[in-house]
Amino acid sequence: MAYYGSIEAGGTKFVCAVADENLTILDRVSLPTTLPEETLAKVFDFFDAYQLRALGVGSFGPIDVNETSDTYGYITSTPKQGWQNVDFLGKLRQHYNIPMAWTTDVNAAAYGEMHLGAGKNTQSCIYLTVGTGVGGGAVVNGHVLQGFSHPEMGHIPMERYPKDTLISSCPFHDHCLEGLAAGPALEKRTGIKGQLLEQTHDVWEIEAYYLAQALMSYTLTLSPEKIILGGGVMKQTQLFPKIRESLKKQLGGYVSLPNLDEYVVGCELGDNSGTLGCLLLAKEQGV
Amino acid sequence: MAYYGSIEAGGTKFVCAVADENLTILDRVSLPTTLPEETLAKVFDFFDAYQLRALGVGSFGPIDVNETSDTYGYITSTPKQGWQNVDFLGKLRQHYNIPMAWTTDVNAAAYGEMHLGAGKNTQSCIYLTVGTGVGGGAVVNGHVLQGFSHPEMGHIPMERYPKDTLISSCPFHDHCLEGLAAGPALEKRTGIKGQLLEQTHDVWEIEAYYLAQALMSYTLTLSPEKIILGGGVMKQTQLFPKIRESLKKQLGGYVSLPNLDEYVVGCELGDNSGTLGCLLLAKEQGV
Repeated sequence: MAYYGSIEAGGTKFVCAVADENLTILDRVSLPTTLPEETLAKVFDFFDAYQLRALGVGSFGPIDVNETSDTYGYITSTPKQGWQNVDFLGKLRQHYNIPMAWTTDVNAAAYGEMHLGAGKNTQSCIYLTVGTGVGGGAVVNGHVLQGFSHPEMGHIPMERYPKDTLISSCPFHDHCLEGLAAGPALEKRTGIKGQLLEQTHDVWEIEAYYLAQALMSYTLTLSPEKIILGGGVMKQTQLFPKIRESLKKQLGGYVSLPNLDEYVVGCELGDNSGTLGCLLLAKEQGV
Repeated sequence: MAYYGSIEAGGTKFVCAVADENLTILDRVSLPTTLPEETLAKVFDFFDAYQLRALGVGSFGPIDVNETSDTYGYITSTPKQGWQNVDFLGKLRQHYNIPMAWTTDVNAAAYGEMHLGAGKNTQSCIYLTVGTGVGGGAVVNGHVLQGFSHPEMGHIPMERYPKDTLISSCPFHDHCLEGLAAGPALEKRTGIKGQLLEQTHDVWEIEAYYLAQALMSYTLTLSPEKIILGGGVMKQTQLFPKIRESLKKQLGGYVSLPNLDEYVVGCELGDNSGTLGCLLLAKEQGV
């Protein structure tokens, strides 16, 4: 049997999985992200039981995805202790001499959702996760989006909601999406943890405004066929109609969008978006 | 000899050209954009002298680029009198039974610049033209960027420059890039036509801020290898270093950009970006 491996490498945990050629997941483990050597030792322990044909890796970032770069395969300027400038892909390659796909966790999730989830029957989509941070990945013409680097959609600049004076939670930007709309911003606005906030709380209007403004910007820049929203904050499903309404209002009728109920949707693969995306990318390594 | 045709269809003029297989332009005409039947009659007059193998069309928009749509090939909701909901591509196909490529004027320009101009040796770039309006096109993985529709990058929302209260020139959006930074906004800010403004005028700081903010948003969303700026306003070349400086400042060190002098550049093909892009797209129709 042919086995494919997946590593969804997050700042909090690594989810590793093994699947067969049909992408049926046969084994899976969730490992805490500690220091690289320690975490990777556990990753190897898990995969060593299988003869993998190929491995797909979706990593937290920023990462270097430029194949011509000296630091291709590195996690670069992450705030995560111990992981700065780590040759992640190189360490994997030292251990396994098999083809590997390398992209961001959110690009992998976008790829998974496009093939097997909410983006089926499209060739392009955006996947945005809204939680402790905001991360975005995309697929264009069937390929994960990478250019000089990878998307960092969570940090696009925002026009502030009228009279919103919240101090941004982002250490880099005083008015980016993540700084004004990720979980920590919700908590700063209300003094209540996001998951405990009532569905009827006024703060969701502000949250929907910022997310819709970002979706407007992505739409006008990338023109994806679908925008898929995931992450902890999006479990507040009352946000979806609010976002669609605000997006329509902010666009002001300038472009004809697809039916908004089909254009702005939740993810369908749940916690499996990234894992399945990595497995697909592994399988496409052509072995 | 094989002839390829190009139509760069703008709201003011149509530039039609014929080239040989080496894309050497053999003939060219510039026609005023009046009403569709009248303009197209002149287009046909020009091309009828040649046995074209294929035609590339880059049109002002918005246009329908979705091949599965009933209105594929139409110019849709343009403010240009007489051109609303016109089956532009259909009228061309009625007259010439040859393969045709169909995209926006700015996507065609991006494609031309990527292959033959400022974007050579890349696989992805953005082309932004700043003039009476602001239009943006892009190439990703070697293909012009189209999804549910085409990019409309000129209309992304902007955080206002501190204390800027200018009323947006865009009828759709009160704080989009075009509304705050295209030629009419420059003139409203200063009472002076853009081309007559001194290089040392204070307004260029504001202009550079908005353009840099847009470039930040595009960069974080699309991660192109290069951003190419053209159009009348960009003839004010003192803008380039100001934009690069402001982009660096606004990004706040969050992503490692390529060398900014090579990342944000002027177009190299001048008025030929769109025409050469259309010719390339025509030639790639595979005949």
